[in-house]
Amino acid sequence: MKDKRNLSLVMDFYELTMSQCYFNDNKDKEVVFDLFYRKNPDDGGYCVFAGLEQVVDYVSNLHFEKEDIDYLRSLNQFSEDFLEYLSTIRFTGDIYAIPEGTPVFPHEPLVRVKAPIIEAQLVETALLLAINHQTLIATKSRRIVQASEGRAVMEFGARRAHNFDAAILGARAAYIAGCAGSATTYSGKEFGVPVLGTMAHSFIQSFDTEYDAFMYYAKTYPDACTLLIDTYSTLKSGIVNAIKVAKDYLEPNGYRLKGVRIDSGDMSYLSKKVRKMLDEAGMKDCKIVVSNSLDEYVIESLIHQQGAKIDSFGVGENLICSKNSPVFGGVYKMVALEKDGHMIPKIKISDNVEKVTNPGMKNLNRIMDKETGMAIADLLTLEDEVIDTTQDLTIYHPMSRWKYKVIPANTYTVRDMLVPIFKDGKLVYDLPSLEEIRAYSEKELATIWDEIKRFVYPQEYYVDLSEKLLNLKLEMLKKYK
Amino acid sequence: MKDKRNLSLVMDFYELTMSQCYFNDNKDKEVVFDLFYRKNPDDGGYCVFAGLEQVVDYVSNLHFEKEDIDYLRSLNQFSEDFLEYLSTIRFTGDIYAIPEGTPVFPHEPLVRVKAPIIEAQLVETALLLAINHQTLIATKSRRIVQASEGRAVMEFGARRAHNFDAAILGARAAYIAGCAGSATTYSGKEFGVPVLGTMAHSFIQSFDTEYDAFMYYAKTYPDACTLLIDTYSTLKSGIVNAIKVAKDYLEPNGYRLKGVRIDSGDMSYLSKKVRKMLDEAGMKDCKIVVSNSLDEYVIESLIHQQGAKIDSFGVGENLICSKNSPVFGGVYKMVALEKDGHMIPKIKISDNVEKVTNPGMKNLNRIMDKETGMAIADLLTLEDEVIDTTQDLTIYHPMSRWKYKVIPANTYTVRDMLVPIFKDGKLVYDLPSLEEIRAYSEKELATIWDEIKRFVYPQEYYVDLSEKLLNLKLEMLKKYK
Repeated sequence: MKDKRNLSLVMDFYELTMSQCYFNDNKDKEVVFDLFYRKNPDDGGYCVFAGLEQVVDYVSNLHFEKEDIDYLRSLNQFSEDFLEYLSTIRFTGDIYAIPEGTPVFPHEPLVRVKAPIIEAQLVETALLLAINHQTLIATKSRRIVQASEGRAVMEFGARRAHNFDAAILGARAAYIAGCAGSATTYSGKEFGVPVLGTMAHSFIQSFDTEYDAFMYYAKTYPDACTLLIDTYSTLKSGIVNAIKVAKDYLEPNGYRLKGVRIDSGDMSYLSKKVRKMLDEAGMKDCKIVVSNSLDEYVIESLIHQQGAKIDSFGVGENLICSKNSPVFGGVYKMVALEKDGHMIPKIKISDNVEKVTNPGMKNLNRIMDKETGMAIADLLTLEDEVIDTTQDLTIYHPMSRWKYKVIPANTYTVRDMLVPIFKDGKLVYDLPSLEEIRAYSEKELATIWDEIKRFVYPQEYYVDLSEKLLNLKLEMLKKYK
Repeated sequence: MKDKRNLSLVMDFYELTMSQCYFNDNKDKEVVFDLFYRKNPDDGGYCVFAGLEQVVDYVSNLHFEKEDIDYLRSLNQFSEDFLEYLSTIRFTGDIYAIPEGTPVFPHEPLVRVKAPIIEAQLVETALLLAINHQTLIATKSRRIVQASEGRAVMEFGARRAHNFDAAILGARAAYIAGCAGSATTYSGKEFGVPVLGTMAHSFIQSFDTEYDAFMYYAKTYPDACTLLIDTYSTLKSGIVNAIKVAKDYLEPNGYRLKGVRIDSGDMSYLSKKVRKMLDEAGMKDCKIVVSNSLDEYVIESLIHQQGAKIDSFGVGENLICSKNSPVFGGVYKMVALEKDGHMIPKIKISDNVEKVTNPGMKNLNRIMDKETGMAIADLLTLEDEVIDTTQDLTIYHPMSRWKYKVIPANTYTVRDMLVPIFKDGKLVYDLPSLEEIRAYSEKELATIWDEIKRFVYPQEYYVDLSEKLLNLKLEMLKKYK
C-alpha cells in the first residue's frame, strides 16, 4: 500500500535552489550519484540494507501538485518558467540498488542514480532518509537477533520511536532483520509484520487483584495466554498467581499457560527463579519472555555469563532508536557528470582520507569462495570492466597500490550486486514480499564469516577496488595536489 | 493540514488485546492516565514540551475503517462483537495538557487523559510517540539555540532523521524551540516553518570551476547569495572565489554577497581567517555560516573558548536525532480508576523510588514569584485543592514529609498549567499557530532561572507535592508494604 501523502517536498530546500540554476543552465545534463556510508553503527562489521521499497515509492510518486507549486511560488525565489517545469517533472533516470536484506559494508554504493541533474538532486534527501533510517534499524535489530541465538526477538519500541514513520517502518526493518514480530499494529496491516502483545501493568492495576486480572485474561485468551507478572512482585505475587490461574482454570479446561513476561528487575535472577517454579509446577512448556532495557550486549551477557532462563526477548527503545548509535551516516555523492556527451568521472576530495570518494560509474561485485560459498570481499569496478573468473583476480586497497590481495583463478565466483530498479524512469524491479526479503537476508547473512559479525572489534570486510578504478582514482587525486 | 493517512492503528497490539477484555468486563469504567517523563535528556535541567497538535490530530481522527477491522479479524483473536464495537469507537473522554512550547520538568503530568478505559488505552502509543519525539527534538534544539546566544540556528538534518515524520515534525519542533528555520521544504509548506538552503558540494562540482559555479549562483540569486566555500579549499580557493564573484558581479550591480558557508574543517580557525579576508575586502556585512557536526557543546566552545567569528549555525544529525540522548522516556501511567461510581486513586509501585507514581487526578500549578516574575517551583495538587495565595504555601518533596519549602503569603502567584484540550471527546482547545507557540515558548523560557538551564549539572527545578497529595501517596505506599 502506498503512502497517501505526497511526500515529494520532503527535500532539502537547496535541491530546489540548485535546480533552478541547473534549469537556467543545462537541465538535461546527466549525472551519476552513489549513495554509500562510511562507518558501521555500533563499531560493527556490517550493516543490513533496508529502505529500498520506500525509495521506490518516493521516486515513482515524485511530482509536485498545484498546492506545492503555489507554496514554492509564495517564497518569491523561483521563476514562473522553473515552476512550470517543476509542475510536470517526473523521474526519468536509472536507479540500480542492492536488494533489501543484503549485508553491506562501508564505501560501497548501495544505490546508484543516473539521471538528468535536477532529478538526481531532487530525490537526494528522501533516498538518504529512507535508507539511513531503515538500514540503521535493520542493522541494530540483526545484532540483537544474532545475540539472541535463535530465541525470538520482538520489537516493542513504538512509543519511543521518532514519530509515526519511525515506528511503522522501524517495525518493517526489524522484521527484515529477523525479529519475530512487532507490537506496532499498523505495521501488521501495512506490511504483514506479525503483531504481538498481551497486557500492560495498567491492565493488572485495573482489577481488584492480580489474580482476578490474570483469570480474566486467561478466560478471554485461553489458548494464547501470556501473563505479565511483575506489577506487584514477580516472585512473591506474579508467578504465584500465574501458576494458580493455570491450575485453577487453564489446565482443567484443557489449555496450557503459554508464557509469563517479566518487565522489570534483574532478568537473570528472576528468570531462573521463575523457571524453577514453573518446572516444579509441571509447566516446563510455559515460556519466559523478558523486556527490560535489552540490547545485544545485555542479551549476550544474560545468555552466556548468567545462564538466564529466557525463551524470548521484547526489545524497545534500544532497538527502535538504535540508542547506542542513533545516526546512520549515508551520503550521496556525485561520481560522474556528462560533458559534451561523455560521462566524466568526478571525485570529492577531502583532507580526511576516509572521505575521499571513489570516482566514476561503478559496479559492485561480491566475490564468493567456490568451496565454502562464503563471501571473500566486495570489489568495485568501473562500469565497462568484466571479471574473468578463470584468471587470478587482484583486488586493491581503496587508497594504495601496494596493498592488494590475489584470489586464485577458478576458486571464486562473482555476483553483480547492483540490480536495476528504474530504467528511464520506469520501475523494472519486481519488489519482493517482506517474507522474501527476510528469508533472503537470513541466507545472505550466512555467507558472511562470523569474524565480520562479531560485536566487538570485528574483522574488517574488504571493499576493494579493481586496478583500473584505483588508477583512475589516484590519477584524479594527483591532479588536485 | 491533517495527515491523509489514518494512523489509528499505530498502537501497540496489547492495547487491543486488553481492550477486548475490558469490552467483555466493564467497558464504560472511567480511568485517569498521566503522561509524564522521569529524566531530562542530556542530563539537562528542563524540557520544551511539543507534539500536542499531533496528539489532537490523532485523537480527533481515532477510528477504524473497514480495512482495519478486516485486518484485525484476520488475526483470529477478536470476537465479532468486539470488532463491531471497535468499528464505531470514537474518543469521548477529557484531555488536559500543557500548551506546546512550555518548559517542563520530570514527574509532572504533561497530558492527563480521563476517559472510558478502552479509549484511554487505545490512544496510549500515539500520545507517547508524538510527544516523546517532538519534546526530545524541541529540547535538543533549545539547548543548541541557547548555546548560540542570539545567532541564528538552522535545522539541516532531514537526511539523517528517522524517516519522513521525524524530518517533517522534527523541523516543526526545532522551530518551536527557537531555530530560525529548516531545510525541510515539506515542513515549510505544511507548518509554515521558514525554509532555507543554498547549494551542495555537488553543485560546485558540476561546474568546470568553483568560480563558474559561484558566478552562476550569484546571477540566479543576486539578492540572496550565500556561497559554499569548502568544496576544494576554504582558504586557498573558496573564499577567494567568493570575494571575486562579489567584486566582479554582485557589487558592480548593486548587490552584496549575503554570506559564505563552511561545511568542513575547523570552524574556529577557518571562520577567523575568512572573517579577516572578508573584512579586508570591505565585506563586513557578509555573514559566515558554519555547519559541521555542531551541537550545543561545540557551539558554546566555539563562541566562548575560541572566539570564532560565526554568524549562524546549520545543525544536522546532532539535532534531528538528538544524537547524544536519542530516547525521550515519556510514560503513561494509570493514576485513578472508577469503582462503584467513584474515582479511586491508583499508584504504581516499584523497587526504584524514582519510578513510584503520584496517585490520583491532579492539577499542575506553576508557582511564580511576584517580584521577579520567575518560576519558583511546580506543585502537584489533588483535583479538589485550591491554593490561597494570601496564605503561606508549603510544598513537599515527592517522597518525604521532612523535606519541604515554605513560600510566604502574598509573594507568589499560581498558574494552572493543564488546560482543557478535549471535553467529552469534543475539541475545546483553540490550537495556536506555530508562530504563537514559538513566541510563547521564548517568553516562558525566560521565566526559568539560568541555573536550571545550565547544560552541565544544572540546578534541579522543584516539582513538589501538596501536603494532601503527599499524604495520600505515603498512605498508599504503606498499604503495599
